[in-house]
Amino acid sequence: MARRSGRRPGNQDTRQDILDAARSVFSDKGFDQASIRAIATEAKVDPALVHHYFGTKDKLFLASLNMPLNPAELVPKALDGPREEAGERLVRLVISVWDSPAGVAAVALMRSAMSNEWLARLMREFVVTQVLRRAIHEMGMQGEDAALRSALVATQIAGLAVIRYVFKVEPVASADPETLVRAIGPNVQRYLTGDL
Amino acid sequence: MARRSGRRPGNQDTRQDILDAARSVFSDKGFDQASIRAIATEAKVDPALVHHYFGTKDKLFLASLNMPLNPAELVPKALDGPREEAGERLVRLVISVWDSPAGVAAVALMRSAMSNEWLARLMREFVVTQVLRRAIHEMGMQGEDAALRSALVATQIAGLAVIRYVFKVEPVASADPETLVRAIGPNVQRYLTGDL
Repeated sequence: MARRSGRRPGNQDTRQDILDAARSVFSDKGFDQASIRAIATEAKVDPALVHHYFGTKDKLFLASLNMPLNPAELVPKALDGPREEAGERLVRLVISVWDSPAGVAAVALMRSAMSNEWLARLMREFVVTQVLRRAIHEMGMQGEDAALRSALVATQIAGLAVIRYVFKVEPVASADPETLVRAIGPNVQRYLTGDL
Repeated sequence: MARRSGRRPGNQDTRQDILDAARSVFSDKGFDQASIRAIATEAKVDPALVHHYFGTKDKLFLASLNMPLNPAELVPKALDGPREEAGERLVRLVISVWDSPAGVAAVALMRSAMSNEWLARLMREFVVTQVLRRAIHEMGMQGEDAALRSALVATQIAGLAVIRYVFKVEPVASADPETLVRAIGPNVQRYLTGDL
């Protein structure tokens, strides 16, 4: 591998080696089975160095996918607060992220996941199991119920993303965020806390 | 172009020429602007022959995409009937089609549309504008309201398809259809007839 020049070439190369190793290990094993230790071994560095550069497995995963934002931090924050408005807050969060410059990377990632089996598996394990299901569990939903609710929330959020950002169907594509929050929020709310 | 052998080589070739021309014209002009006349010109045949082989522009479009079922016929049928259960009927229809052998082609088509601009435009114009919006108009919704409602229904239906068939998120991926009809039907119903 060609070494790049720079002020701290050693550090930059190590960081890049870890990211390459992370992509390879996540791709082979999926999010759940991949370990910091296995990624460190693949990158031929000490696991402590992986933690030093990237912190948690979540953060390393997002960095390896070039994701500038961490849904594992944002989603629980959105769901925290008055319970009966959690659906609206979640829709507002999703739109604010996807409308932002970071949204371009998110759309590209979702497009890729549609035709890439390992990326689809990672999205499934990370976004749905790690992020949504945990956050819904925090709201007091248990076990199978939390699993069903999080997958149902995922149908509405994924569909909003596909229709607004990929297929660009009007008037959803150019609607102002609060119009969509009012229209879609109550549906997400039903999946979160309603009678199914 | 190589001529294929067969019992009715002339007819088969003409049919194939029309399909090739249709793909090319739909791709260039989109669904709305493409005409049977332009497709006939491209295929160097009489427009009457296009009608003879394929019937309407809808049907030619679906044949050119290898779609075995016509949503323009199925969706209005599903929405017809007791108004307060239209959402459940639409979800039941979508799942029955996508769970069937024809669903494989539909999933492949949606995957392709995610990374293909002209296919995304065709899906948008055909499925949302031609099919959903007209059917919702038939239910008595007018103009901009029908447009918003059909795009919102599209978010839920597209999201269900992505989560159940592409990302395969459990328990939605292997839930029995009636569980999903009960869980998702009322949300679609709100988009169809509810207070937004």
